[in-house]
Amino acid sequence: MKYRVDLNSDLGESFGVYKLGMDKELLEIITSANIACGMHAGDPRVMSATVKMAVQNGTAIGAHPGYPDLQGFGRRNLAMSPEEVKDYVIYQIGALEAFARTMGTTLQHVKVHGALYNMAARDYKLALAIAEAVKAVNPDLILLALANSEMVRAAKDIGLKVAEEVFADRAYNPDGTLVARGTPGAMIHEKAVAIPRVVRMVTEGKVTAINGEDIDIKADSICVHGDNPEALAFVKEIRTALEEAGVSVEPLANFII
Amino acid sequence: MKYRVDLNSDLGESFGVYKLGMDKELLEIITSANIACGMHAGDPRVMSATVKMAVQNGTAIGAHPGYPDLQGFGRRNLAMSPEEVKDYVIYQIGALEAFARTMGTTLQHVKVHGALYNMAARDYKLALAIAEAVKAVNPDLILLALANSEMVRAAKDIGLKVAEEVFADRAYNPDGTLVARGTPGAMIHEKAVAIPRVVRMVTEGKVTAINGEDIDIKADSICVHGDNPEALAFVKEIRTALEEAGVSVEPLANFII
Amino acid sequence: MKYRVDLNSDLGESFGVYKLGMDKELLEIITSANIACGMHAGDPRVMSATVKMAVQNGTAIGAHPGYPDLQGFGRRNLAMSPEEVKDYVIYQIGALEAFARTMGTTLQHVKVHGALYNMAARDYKLALAIAEAVKAVNPDLILLALANSEMVRAAKDIGLKVAEEVFADRAYNPDGTLVARGTPGAMIHEKAVAIPRVVRMVTEGKVTAINGEDIDIKADSICVHGDNPEALAFVKEIRTALEEAGVSVEPLANFII
Amino acid sequence: MKYRVDLNSDLGESFGVYKLGMDKELLEIITSANIACGMHAGDPRVMSATVKMAVQNGTAIGAHPGYPDLQGFGRRNLAMSPEEVKDYVIYQIGALEAFARTMGTTLQHVKVHGALYNMAARDYKLALAIAEAVKAVNPDLILLALANSEMVRAAKDIGLKVAEEVFADRAYNPDGTLVARGTPGAMIHEKAVAIPRVVRMVTEGKVTAINGEDIDIKADSICVHGDNPEALAFVKEIRTALEEAGVSVEPLANFII
Repeated sequence: MKYRVDLNSDLGESFGVYKLGMDKELLEIITSANIACGMHAGDPRVMSATVKMAVQNGTAIGAHPGYPDLQGFGRRNLAMSPEEVKDYVIYQIGALEAFARTMGTTLQHVKVHGALYNMAARDYKLALAIAEAVKAVNPDLILLALANSEMVRAAKDIGLKVAEEVFADRAYNPDGTLVARGTPGAMIHEKAVAIPRVVRMVTEGKVTAINGEDIDIKADSICVHGDNPEALAFVKEIRTALEEAGVSVEPLANFII
Repeated sequence: MKYRVDLNSDLGESFGVYKLGMDKELLEIITSANIACGMHAGDPRVMSATVKMAVQNGTAIGAHPGYPDLQGFGRRNLAMSPEEVKDYVIYQIGALEAFARTMGTTLQHVKVHGALYNMAARDYKLALAIAEAVKAVNPDLILLALANSEMVRAAKDIGLKVAEEVFADRAYNPDGTLVARGTPGAMIHEKAVAIPRVVRMVTEGKVTAINGEDIDIKADSICVHGDNPEALAFVKEIRTALEEAGVSVEPLANFII
Repeated sequence: MKYRVDLNSDLGESFGVYKLGMDKELLEIITSANIACGMHAGDPRVMSATVKMAVQNGTAIGAHPGYPDLQGFGRRNLAMSPEEVKDYVIYQIGALEAFARTMGTTLQHVKVHGALYNMAARDYKLALAIAEAVKAVNPDLILLALANSEMVRAAKDIGLKVAEEVFADRAYNPDGTLVARGTPGAMIHEKAVAIPRVVRMVTEGKVTAINGEDIDIKADSICVHGDNPEALAFVKEIRTALEEAGVSVEPLANFII
Repeated sequence: MKYRVDLNSDLGESFGVYKLGMDKELLEIITSANIACGMHAGDPRVMSATVKMAVQNGTAIGAHPGYPDLQGFGRRNLAMSPEEVKDYVIYQIGALEAFARTMGTTLQHVKVHGALYNMAARDYKLALAIAEAVKAVNPDLILLALANSEMVRAAKDIGLKVAEEVFADRAYNPDGTLVARGTPGAMIHEKAVAIPRVVRMVTEGKVTAINGEDIDIKADSICVHGDNPEALAFVKEIRTALEEAGVSVEPLANFII
């Protein structure tokens, strides 16, 4: 089969009595699970249960470190220095990896969460701190990062494996970056537009930017969400459309080398 | 050399701007460092710095997991189930181990902290949960546990290496357990009593219990504290007295097999 | 009207992105809202929104302090001293009262949460610490406490107004205490039993204990839950049955003096 | 007496076992204590003890709310919306006020902490959220704010009493704002320069900006620190110099109306 792509989603974002997400259902569709590590979401019980469920399902596992901000769900910028970020990322990867090990598996990748993801996409120093943290813990891990971002650049600069991720429902600037939320046209709401668009990213390596121009994009993984039944149905449609276009949906480790 | 013993102490208990302990000075005297893992004390920055300092000093490193209770410093009982305790211990060992790995070393041991230590010393189910957590993360780790406690029994039951620790300043019951703090005679304040007593535990495997009876005790490691200059001086005196009695002070991994 | 009773429920137990409970719907049925104060659940945003919603609905407001244990939702015993509990309760009442004040109202009552409630029901020293905290912040507040508990006794001892609460779905021991969960017969699952039973507690001041004996009980308030549509329907049925029996459902402040 | 000024300092910044600051000694020199409220520092036990100590000393008490970031001590910017900040400030003032009330006193003022202080000094929307929070809880409170800042402007705009504070050891820009730390000349290290400079701010309402130009400044309060014996000695010298210049050192409430 010619084309390969990964489907990734954030999982294990429950906390204590608080339940979030449709993890069980999502695990049947996606190929890589980004599991929260107890700082912006998740706790040791949730992490343990989520890793177990992913292992039973054969889904590849990644750490999903975020800012230490449970109340803000890691979505608020927190002015941590690169040195702080590095240690917080090491801590969180280690914590998740321990659960993977107790269940006879290893981590495939790391994807940072929320505000940290957005900050590091634009800030090379933060991006480098994250890439260095990942490499220091385990040089075989793949960094899953926004396509065309500083995180991709930093990972390449230090020889860390990196996978570029794309979004089905977001518009792109001519330079390959995401159009900021809030900007008119930033979100693509119609499935009939979004689905062929994401298939094309994978099969042609192209996407039409917001100004109408065709640009290059590398789509190693597609980020999907499973917060509600509708979102889940959308993920299934994306997967079906990819497969019908001859794309093999596989975990990152199969093709990121 | 005939006799061997380890000197262990809790380190890395600072948090953010809050400084605690004389870690640098202690590291020059002890042979095993129990490093806090961010739940009852410590944070990723402190853990990173403490592991680095221990590595530079050649001191063996252990994880020091505790209850998630920073305000109470892990000294208040928290009614967690054995399943919860297991996951919290896995999480904390993993987090610390990641820092060890980034600095080219591995963990030697695990010693649980404060109220969790006291609870698990008496509660076999909790003790077993802790021993299982340690073994699941890494079966080569040594559990450092109160001599004669349920933790020692649980570790042996599942084939986990265990080191028994003793206290220079605590009285023992005839059954080998510690006399509860607050009981008259529970604490041994005089150095002239405490030091020969701890030397005897190591060289003879005996201690005089609170009722005057001599009992057997296994002293693989001596727990020491370095909160202030006086405490530090006491640790030095213990080490000197041991060495003068022909005891080799070495990390656990050298003789716990 | 001859008989009066209050219906109380725990509200404002969401946290950050995590949603819990059907607060809006419950507010239309109950007369007193116990609002979480940010330690076991709730956060300043949630507290602000919940107080606002209660004020708009004309429901009386109470502080619902708990142990500082978000991960355990305040349901795990935490060995805090009475002095610690007192300060934690003062803190939480103050925080909630500030929101009440910004919305032009005042607190009616305080009800402690979960494990703290259960502990203080049996432990006079803890109960006294709670009663003293309430009185110190505002001597006009009503302590809402388990009927026949140490909290009732402590409140009376220091001259604090106290309301006794009963449960529709719990069995009682002959001494008026609750049959512990887990004991056979502890829970009353059938509505056809529970509803007339709670009506009788209010109108006759009697309940049949688990041994078949009739005992006295003071039912100032009935504790209800609104976690799901079924629970909500049950609360409506209780209220309807009370009103049909000639009981006036009113907030505590109307009749606790 | 013609001139009056307040000396304020941050107190109650210990947490659990972690001790910080020389609160007891400082209380004998300053006239207004800004007491941490449990978010960036402090906990209910520390708050209770600090309020008690301030009351015994006759020092005026203020709430010192900060970002919810204990690990960063509230010194890292956290991208909270004005609405979030408002609720977090209300919460913290309420919590501290409850302790004041239990000890028979009331709050004099509110001063926000660290990164929140610095952000709100420049951001009118944040400043307004803070001023509105203070006014909503208690319209008689004084907002203690950086001289010439957006906080001063916001407080005046909504009719809230405001006191302007100055720093003995910081350089000023020609527009009256502080020279950013890190800029050459930002810190004034010599006592022989700093002390007459702060006396002049109080008695003449003037300070020499970093470009050599004399500018107007309103010095209602001087912010001082007591982290160590040297700092404490500096505070004493400032107070002595002020008194020798005929300035009466008094709490804000005496002259901010």
